[in-house]
Amino acid sequence: MARVRVTRRLHFAAAHRLGRGDWTAEQNAAVFGECANPNWHGHNYELDVTVEGEIDPETGYVMDLKVLKDLVEERVVGDLDHRNLNLDVEWMAGSNPTTENLVVAIWRRLQEAIEPPARLVRIVLWETPRNYVEYSGG
Amino acid sequence: MARVRVTRRLHFAAAHRLGRGDWTAEQNAAVFGECANPNWHGHNYELDVTVEGEIDPETGYVMDLKVLKDLVEERVVGDLDHRNLNLDVEWMAGSNPTTENLVVAIWRRLQEAIEPPARLVRIVLWETPRNYVEYSGG
Amino acid sequence: MARVRVTRRLHFAAAHRLGRGDWTAEQNAAVFGECANPNWHGHNYELDVTVEGEIDPETGYVMDLKVLKDLVEERVVGDLDHRNLNLDVEWMAGSNPTTENLVVAIWRRLQEAIEPPARLVRIVLWETPRNYVEYSGG
Amino acid sequence: MARVRVTRRLHFAAAHRLGRGDWTAEQNAAVFGECANPNWHGHNYELDVTVEGEIDPETGYVMDLKVLKDLVEERVVGDLDHRNLNLDVEWMAGSNPTTENLVVAIWRRLQEAIEPPARLVRIVLWETPRNYVEYSGG
Amino acid sequence: MARVRVTRRLHFAAAHRLGRGDWTAEQNAAVFGECANPNWHGHNYELDVTVEGEIDPETGYVMDLKVLKDLVEERVVGDLDHRNLNLDVEWMAGSNPTTENLVVAIWRRLQEAIEPPARLVRIVLWETPRNYVEYSGG
Amino acid sequence: MARVRVTRRLHFAAAHRLGRGDWTAEQNAAVFGECANPNWHGHNYELDVTVEGEIDPETGYVMDLKVLKDLVEERVVGDLDHRNLNLDVEWMAGSNPTTENLVVAIWRRLQEAIEPPARLVRIVLWETPRNYVEYSGG
Repeated sequence: MARVRVTRRLHFAAAHRLGRGDWTAEQNAAVFGECANPNWHGHNYELDVTVEGEIDPETGYVMDLKVLKDLVEERVVGDLDHRNLNLDVEWMAGSNPTTENLVVAIWRRLQEAIEPPARLVRIVLWETPRNYVEYSGG
Repeated sequence: MARVRVTRRLHFAAAHRLGRGDWTAEQNAAVFGECANPNWHGHNYELDVTVEGEIDPETGYVMDLKVLKDLVEERVVGDLDHRNLNLDVEWMAGSNPTTENLVVAIWRRLQEAIEPPARLVRIVLWETPRNYVEYSGG
Repeated sequence: MARVRVTRRLHFAAAHRLGRGDWTAEQNAAVFGECANPNWHGHNYELDVTVEGEIDPETGYVMDLKVLKDLVEERVVGDLDHRNLNLDVEWMAGSNPTTENLVVAIWRRLQEAIEPPARLVRIVLWETPRNYVEYSGG
Repeated sequence: MARVRVTRRLHFAAAHRLGRGDWTAEQNAAVFGECANPNWHGHNYELDVTVEGEIDPETGYVMDLKVLKDLVEERVVGDLDHRNLNLDVEWMAGSNPTTENLVVAIWRRLQEAIEPPARLVRIVLWETPRNYVEYSGG
Repeated sequence: MARVRVTRRLHFAAAHRLGRGDWTAEQNAAVFGECANPNWHGHNYELDVTVEGEIDPETGYVMDLKVLKDLVEERVVGDLDHRNLNLDVEWMAGSNPTTENLVVAIWRRLQEAIEPPARLVRIVLWETPRNYVEYSGG
Repeated sequence: MARVRVTRRLHFAAAHRLGRGDWTAEQNAAVFGECANPNWHGHNYELDVTVEGEIDPETGYVMDLKVLKDLVEERVVGDLDHRNLNLDVEWMAGSNPTTENLVVAIWRRLQEAIEPPARLVRIVLWETPRNYVEYSGG
């Protein structure tokens, strides 16, 4: 059977600020600019989760997208939506919440939960309509 | 000469939380739900500012959109982008930062600054790709 | 207090075909072209529902958008999503499901359910990314 | 019957430069900035044409959108697409091709051609994804 | 010469329902949920067709996109637009019209028709603005 | 550390016409159709520039996107925006400005300027909302 990639897009809104806890405010401002503003800012994130696999000849699906959506909501979006990425998310604790670090953390939350034969192959995380980060593992 | 409406779209990212300072956390949570989460959340806002006027027969413009853009950046976006709407914005002080209250406050910042014959006639503020508020004065 | 307009966008997917039950297939094909294909076709509709009112000084809301969303899902989207507009929707029975007729029917479903001081003032229904119909009552 | 507004969106790509024939290059550069660059620049325009009328009880249409599309292509888009707005368009001759002047000229091309009971009520012309002009006659 | 990928996006609207002819309605409803509703539903599909090849030094093209567009309209969109994917499409006969199965069938329609040196390398099929399937052969 | 891809989207508007200087107007019209119109046409281009690298454990960045944006503006967008691709751009001189040729020329402008460990891996150039070209080197 043919091998295809199936993507589901989800949405969440969150606050964050960039910076390291072991740096001074001045150091963080010098490196992260306005993204280090101490009182936070936030974004509407778009999250595209892609799984790959052979099409199941019985169903015509690689994976039921309703199942994928529920999984991403339960393990990722439910923890991030209307939250503070620096303060509220256990699995981001101690991490500077750049889009790069966030997309890798989301990957780890999802990879272990997607059941074969479907396989997580790409996550794209849009921070604004003008920038995004993609991760394919590795 | 013909009377037309000219719109310029701008973008900013900000943090906020909904709630009243004179209510308890429980009251705010009951009314505003997850939007009252104490550690903030945030959005990518899109702001559409519309002015109306007769087309100037000399220039073919109602108003130079570069001038409008600079004005909105100076009086609005510069104060909001990468900031906290509850804590950092002098002209929102004491106001619950719903999109409704924010659009009216933006109107007041801009109306006094747009010079005749152009006239501010509508502001649309998108909080997410799925909801927006518009205000035309009054 | 200021009077603003607040919009919530929702989505549904439905099948339909255009035509009148009292016309022959030839008449319907002559007037409605490929939209009259007997085996149906379908669309992803986007539905923008706008209410107007004064901002409540207590909450900073015209109307809680969560309440509006739940109302539109219960009275409109729940009846239309993944359905056939000609066959499955009691409140469209006997009506040719053009976007024009559908937007007016949706208005009637919603107007009676939105409670003052908020007031339904506009519905925009996108049938494709290239065409939409708007209705403001009357 | 209910009165609704029906919109069809069309697309064209064109070159132009802003400026007046009776001004020097320096004057044009001073007023129109980079938009006056002598070797032209260009845009992908989006054109939204809206007609209003009562829904025809026989067809459920205000106006067949296929007819509207063909009309706009014949009278407007066919003259503008892949053309130079300063040099190639008879009905823009002598006019500085600002979006303001262009939308009014398009209105005049269309208004006379739309047959009652449908009535042209609004044209929106996007010059970029960040700015647009709308005209409703008058 | 450089090897690039060139994509053309096309649009169609179609009805379908998910399910297997050899299953009962109950089985289909259990597996496919509301997508199995017997009276059909439908979507506005967006189809992105990508070809790869070296840039022809004579023309600066990999392949004339007008030729690619005409080919996709003739072999794919013309058969699908305003049709029922279960009933009207000879080359989908007997296939459950999931987006997965549809994208593979479209690939087969196009691959044999694209002439070297251009080579079909990817098809992306959006079923809604929130989900899509991509196929690269194999 | 994880290896991710980071993309920044930028915008420019330009005029061009397709054709070869060593062909007659008739030859160019025969091959390039309306894209060869002698008085030019133009587009709003969207340019997505993607770099890849390991996430810097100190900053959580692959590359500061502000630095990438400034680089693309200085070396590419500043030369193209509100210009004529055939006449005004030194690094396109003698080249037929198809999207294919333009994306390769942009690659060459950027590749030499991006500093390790970040590495340019993909450029996508949208000429209209319906077609784009991507280049990954080679």
